[in-house]
Amino acid sequence: MNILVINSGSSSLKFQIVETDQALIDVSQDKVKVKGLIDRIGTQSVAKISVTNGIEIKEAVPIRDHSAALDYIFRKITSGTLNIEGISSIADINAVGHRVVHGGEKFSNSVIVNKSVLKEIEECIDLAPLHNPANLKGIEATLSLFGEKVPHVVVFDTAFHSTIPEVNYLYALPYQYYRRYRIRKYGFHGMSHRYVSYRYRTILNLEREKLNVIVVHLGNGCSACAIKDGKSFDTSMGFTPLAGLVMGTRAGDIDASIMDFLAHKEGVSLSDIDILLNKASGLLGISGLTNDMRELLDEEKEHHDRRATLAINMFTMRIKHYIGAYLTEMGGADAILFTGGIGENSAEIRRRICDNMQFLGLEIDENLNKQKCFGAEGEISTAGSKLKAWVIPTNEELMIARDTFRCVMKVPSP
Amino acid sequence: MNILVINSGSSSLKFQIVETDQALIDVSQDKVKVKGLIDRIGTQSVAKISVTNGIEIKEAVPIRDHSAALDYIFRKITSGTLNIEGISSIADINAVGHRVVHGGEKFSNSVIVNKSVLKEIEECIDLAPLHNPANLKGIEATLSLFGEKVPHVVVFDTAFHSTIPEVNYLYALPYQYYRRYRIRKYGFHGMSHRYVSYRYRTILNLEREKLNVIVVHLGNGCSACAIKDGKSFDTSMGFTPLAGLVMGTRAGDIDASIMDFLAHKEGVSLSDIDILLNKASGLLGISGLTNDMRELLDEEKEHHDRRATLAINMFTMRIKHYIGAYLTEMGGADAILFTGGIGENSAEIRRRICDNMQFLGLEIDENLNKQKCFGAEGEISTAGSKLKAWVIPTNEELMIARDTFRCVMKVPSP
Repeated sequence: MNILVINSGSSSLKFQIVETDQALIDVSQDKVKVKGLIDRIGTQSVAKISVTNGIEIKEAVPIRDHSAALDYIFRKITSGTLNIEGISSIADINAVGHRVVHGGEKFSNSVIVNKSVLKEIEECIDLAPLHNPANLKGIEATLSLFGEKVPHVVVFDTAFHSTIPEVNYLYALPYQYYRRYRIRKYGFHGMSHRYVSYRYRTILNLEREKLNVIVVHLGNGCSACAIKDGKSFDTSMGFTPLAGLVMGTRAGDIDASIMDFLAHKEGVSLSDIDILLNKASGLLGISGLTNDMRELLDEEKEHHDRRATLAINMFTMRIKHYIGAYLTEMGGADAILFTGGIGENSAEIRRRICDNMQFLGLEIDENLNKQKCFGAEGEISTAGSKLKAWVIPTNEELMIARDTFRCVMKVPSP
Repeated sequence: MNILVINSGSSSLKFQIVETDQALIDVSQDKVKVKGLIDRIGTQSVAKISVTNGIEIKEAVPIRDHSAALDYIFRKITSGTLNIEGISSIADINAVGHRVVHGGEKFSNSVIVNKSVLKEIEECIDLAPLHNPANLKGIEATLSLFGEKVPHVVVFDTAFHSTIPEVNYLYALPYQYYRRYRIRKYGFHGMSHRYVSYRYRTILNLEREKLNVIVVHLGNGCSACAIKDGKSFDTSMGFTPLAGLVMGTRAGDIDASIMDFLAHKEGVSLSDIDILLNKASGLLGISGLTNDMRELLDEEKEHHDRRATLAINMFTMRIKHYIGAYLTEMGGADAILFTGGIGENSAEIRRRICDNMQFLGLEIDENLNKQKCFGAEGEISTAGSKLKAWVIPTNEELMIARDTFRCVMKVPSP
């Protein structure tokens, strides 16, 4: 089954075509045929497409909206010049899977799109005013291209966290605000936490109920997830993706009183402060330099830049905080799993996070740690380490493809 | 030396007279002679005074301001009817010690009051708009009663936390907001964390540099403090006392984005939301019943009230979170020290917090735990427990008295 995976932003559209032909246990059986990104839709659009056979396209093209982006993609894909195995027309696409950021409390699983599902996603716009409308644009575009002949599936970033117990998802606000406005922790990065933890138990051949791990997803967005008895038990992002770890441009946890104080001092609105906390804070805000961890590490190495080091140390200290917190909330765990751009590629950051954790029974093998970069998967702790550490490259698109396959074929999730 | 200890709120004045005659190592050498509270100053004032000899006064009296409250107290104390050993006139007071909530970045120790100190406390009003003006009222009242013949000392809630390293006191905001407005973690409850950790090392005869503990102060306000090598290393309250643990009426940590969302939804101002988070949240907000932990435990026991249990469980889970987080930030510690009204008196809450912490090497002796209530001090972990747990009743007033003595006699803090 050829599945078109769509990740639609407000002015971008990322896609992959993945071949997935059974309820897959092993990652190697899925095949990405082509992937690409149309960026800056509506302004100076740029398209990038790369085929697994090595052919690449990169061009500036005027693209007015998400439907036009999809038309462009399929014009290229079916033109014959890209030579994509098994894809010669849009009829070769058997299903479409969409990433949707916010499923509110309504969706604890991926579902096939129908009118009532679309209505429910719209109702969650209130909770994700930036993300859900953008995701809906992508769904509307594929529905108008493929019609209803091809099943459409939506996969939610929040769904994996629907198992978080009340004691962890509620805030200590007056309870009526949960009842009235559903203010609670939702958590995000669900596809990644689910993929990584699932991959780990596949490798170790563990039953779901035996899985007790902490997944640390470190990309430009970052979150930690405590997985207890195979289910999400707590996660560091909250009502929105602002909370928790220090991220590329997001502050993570702060004293909420700062909002009002800073708005008054700077004479700006609360929504300005919200943007500042999401777009100008984190590694970028502290360093005053960049949200790119590689650049910060280089700057530290070359110039001993004080604020680059400070940003890196705040980043790693906050991760230590959450690892310890989640181990203790869960009463202990078996492993810490690193993923995401930084988690997969920076041995230096992993070393600094795991430093001085001997009291938890964690001991890193620095040789293994250095080897696990650029897509390498495996353990980075010593054979004798009581608490294990692994690197597992994430693959959210694959998870969307598999969920799409499962929904269409009515195969239960493993 | 007879020291008048003052804790002044916006419409209340708490006091003690403590005799402290040397740089004290042992708590038993300090002597509280009388203590009391004037509440609802300016409205329907109520005065309570209790003398160590057993005599008590409780009366409703019209008291217009803090100076009048002090006049009332000394009229009673020196009237002869209370029979307070060694106190027959105000001339028997040798020094006055004041609690001041916020010392900003200026004060890392207690200091003798002079014009420039008063000016600096005023400059911190911006950071503690509710507390510092109230504390200043108390200082003005004692200065006008005693004049400058008697030394006045100010003791800050924030000072103990001045050792917290930058990596823990900064928020991941754009760095200029620290430079411009000193937005950072200050931490509070400093007198309590300092007293309890000092008391612990006195009992165990530990050098300061060997002290690695977590103090969990659980009163109506709650905070945890990681003490590394004898110094505050991190604490759960932040820029204001709102952050961190779930408290009687404060929410503790929340996703900061909730502020804007809730203000819009309810159509109220940010400062209304700030009040709501400080006064109507926490145990009270979740339970919809009370901020009093004893009442919640009773309600749970008698009626299995769902929301009472939920509030208690959220309270204990957040404490678990911080214990694990601080152990990991520090790379391990020797003991957890419980203090404050709930921490000192509720064996049930301590049991629930420490439950399922065997993986950290913590094992509670339930008999010892049950005995350590109502002022009892001592260990509650088993002899074999690798991580220790103790109950140590706090005594902030004693700490203020001792600091006052030390400042006046120029004795360095131990």
